[in-house]
Amino acid sequence: MEDVAIVGAGQSVFARSCGESIRELCFEAYKEALEGLDITGNDIDASVVCSAPEYDKQRSPSGLISEYLELTPKPTFYVETVCSSSSTGLRVAWSLIKAGLHKTVAVIGFQKMSELSSRDAAERMGRGGDIIWESPFGITMPAGYAMYARAHMARYGTTEEHLAKVRVKNSHYGVANPKANYRKELSLEDILNSEMITSPLKKFDCCANADGSSCIILAGGDVAKSITKKPIWVVGLGAATDTMSMAGRKSLTGLQCAQEAAKQAYEMAGVKPQDIDVAEVHDCFTVSELLAYEDLGFAKPGEGAGLLEDKETYVEGKIPVNVDGGLLSKGHPIGATGGSQIRTIVRQLRGEATEAQVKDAEIGLVHNIGGVGQYGNVTILRR
Amino acid sequence: MEDVAIVGAGQSVFARSCGESIRELCFEAYKEALEGLDITGNDIDASVVCSAPEYDKQRSPSGLISEYLELTPKPTFYVETVCSSSSTGLRVAWSLIKAGLHKTVAVIGFQKMSELSSRDAAERMGRGGDIIWESPFGITMPAGYAMYARAHMARYGTTEEHLAKVRVKNSHYGVANPKANYRKELSLEDILNSEMITSPLKKFDCCANADGSSCIILAGGDVAKSITKKPIWVVGLGAATDTMSMAGRKSLTGLQCAQEAAKQAYEMAGVKPQDIDVAEVHDCFTVSELLAYEDLGFAKPGEGAGLLEDKETYVEGKIPVNVDGGLLSKGHPIGATGGSQIRTIVRQLRGEATEAQVKDAEIGLVHNIGGVGQYGNVTILRR
Repeated sequence: MEDVAIVGAGQSVFARSCGESIRELCFEAYKEALEGLDITGNDIDASVVCSAPEYDKQRSPSGLISEYLELTPKPTFYVETVCSSSSTGLRVAWSLIKAGLHKTVAVIGFQKMSELSSRDAAERMGRGGDIIWESPFGITMPAGYAMYARAHMARYGTTEEHLAKVRVKNSHYGVANPKANYRKELSLEDILNSEMITSPLKKFDCCANADGSSCIILAGGDVAKSITKKPIWVVGLGAATDTMSMAGRKSLTGLQCAQEAAKQAYEMAGVKPQDIDVAEVHDCFTVSELLAYEDLGFAKPGEGAGLLEDKETYVEGKIPVNVDGGLLSKGHPIGATGGSQIRTIVRQLRGEATEAQVKDAEIGLVHNIGGVGQYGNVTILRR
Repeated sequence: MEDVAIVGAGQSVFARSCGESIRELCFEAYKEALEGLDITGNDIDASVVCSAPEYDKQRSPSGLISEYLELTPKPTFYVETVCSSSSTGLRVAWSLIKAGLHKTVAVIGFQKMSELSSRDAAERMGRGGDIIWESPFGITMPAGYAMYARAHMARYGTTEEHLAKVRVKNSHYGVANPKANYRKELSLEDILNSEMITSPLKKFDCCANADGSSCIILAGGDVAKSITKKPIWVVGLGAATDTMSMAGRKSLTGLQCAQEAAKQAYEMAGVKPQDIDVAEVHDCFTVSELLAYEDLGFAKPGEGAGLLEDKETYVEGKIPVNVDGGLLSKGHPIGATGGSQIRTIVRQLRGEATEAQVKDAEIGLVHNIGGVGQYGNVTILRR
């Protein structure tokens, strides 16, 4: 079976409100993904459209978007694992190519969250948890991650300052990212003094809702080499779940779905955590990035905060993480997020990252989580 | 690459209202699919969950259902192409296995439509069309298919009696199907005299909303042979789209997505329409079955009604179609429908169909359409 590469990657500007219809929003990312390729839309064999439903009123958006991108009569379908939908889409597209059904597949992620009020959006997000036993009792996304933060603090002595330092780093890099929604550098004090959302998570410990789209184009090896000089190879794929219910979790000091997905991806790629040159991790909350350091093996359990103290996850450090600003700066348009993370790593491995380029990056990793650790996806890319 | 087979197939009873939560509903189909196999749930590597969102309040149901079926930490995700979601799920599961990511994958389809009023359900369904340019102006599902019926009548002289004869056949076979929602035999007069819904489609020309679930378990060749004596091989897969907008259609006398998907599936399987021993086609309306005869090449364009006149699509005919009663008898729980059609063909090819067994059936076909011909899926199975 031939290898599969990413040949194009694009995203829209992530914004609080995009002022466009979802089809127009998706076109922005698709256009950037096709730029510089020796193909046109006619050469795309199929598309996978990724988002979380119910934020906008359009049902079955894959058909609509496929028509707008002039992909009819090519097949399209919709894939969802909430916040990790477009990483799941990549996994599916990779399989379609590997299985021989298609040569070139576009993975389009989007979310238009601005159609709902923040209150309604939070309610919809909560319904990504168990709506009989948990979400009606207040287990929303911030509350779920706050439980992880509290457990990590209790077990390892992690502090609110440690969490805030994730945002200090990410806000620093977000300033230089023209596609980010939030481009203001924040001090430790700004973060620690911001409004409490759900203890210990404060306003600036949380990423913001956004409108946005992303597009990743994959192709089989021979095709990939013929249409771009810089194919980025998908060498490791991991996917796992944890229980939907928080009550079913065996531990709250790490995300088991991420640990398991990482194990699979490292094994498939034949690499170890220390081989990774640059990573994008799912920092929907500051604590999520800290957990990711440990779940991915960049630090031992309980020692993630040390990486921040030593600035090892900055661009000059041992393992630069989220040097595009992360979700905390970019915003988190649910279905578009994974594709945006992948785009950043593609640009890093091509040496084309304008916000902060990691020198000679060869192997990159994307960690993308759905819900409060229900769905874990780890993808390893290589130039 | 090894071949992929269906090793298990199950469905719940389709009913107007199931009185269960979606997780319990899915368990019914999963349990039947596992029956008689030399494996347990522990041997399932991954699941693909298929439905159309917004009928029930649970978001991201794949995680919830996966947990309830005790599949955690195996990966799961959600796939949607409205009414053809579980055929798309089968295509994706086939690719995951073929690509080497998994050995055994469960495709679980469900819909619990009873949580909405009929009026609300119709409105949601309409939003499967273009919500800016079309559905607000009345292009709901019945209206879309009525346009196809009118165009077919105008061009080929098809009559309302021809349409009604589809229901006469399907209601006849539905009586014997214990999983069907509607089990009463209907006469030509019953159908022609039923209430007008959207001319020329009357009440009995339309399938009914239902609650229901289906489950198809696929496995790679070696595994398949080791766990069942009767693997059913997936030999042809076709998928295509037509424009989301009705205004974009090039013709209204046939579904182009089905014609294209059929072409792909026949080519991949190396068979012709006349090789098919038994078929399940997407009879969401009577006219849909008539269009399918022609789109699949069982009859020439405009000659589909002749097959019915000659009873060639009855169980003793040249090409038996929907001899389990079809959606018109079973009901149409959106996400579960494709899986139910596949289950029927699996039972036919195994010689285990209790409602009406086609003698010595060796090759079967499933035609499953999403929306008003937006998504076409054709699957060819062989024993």
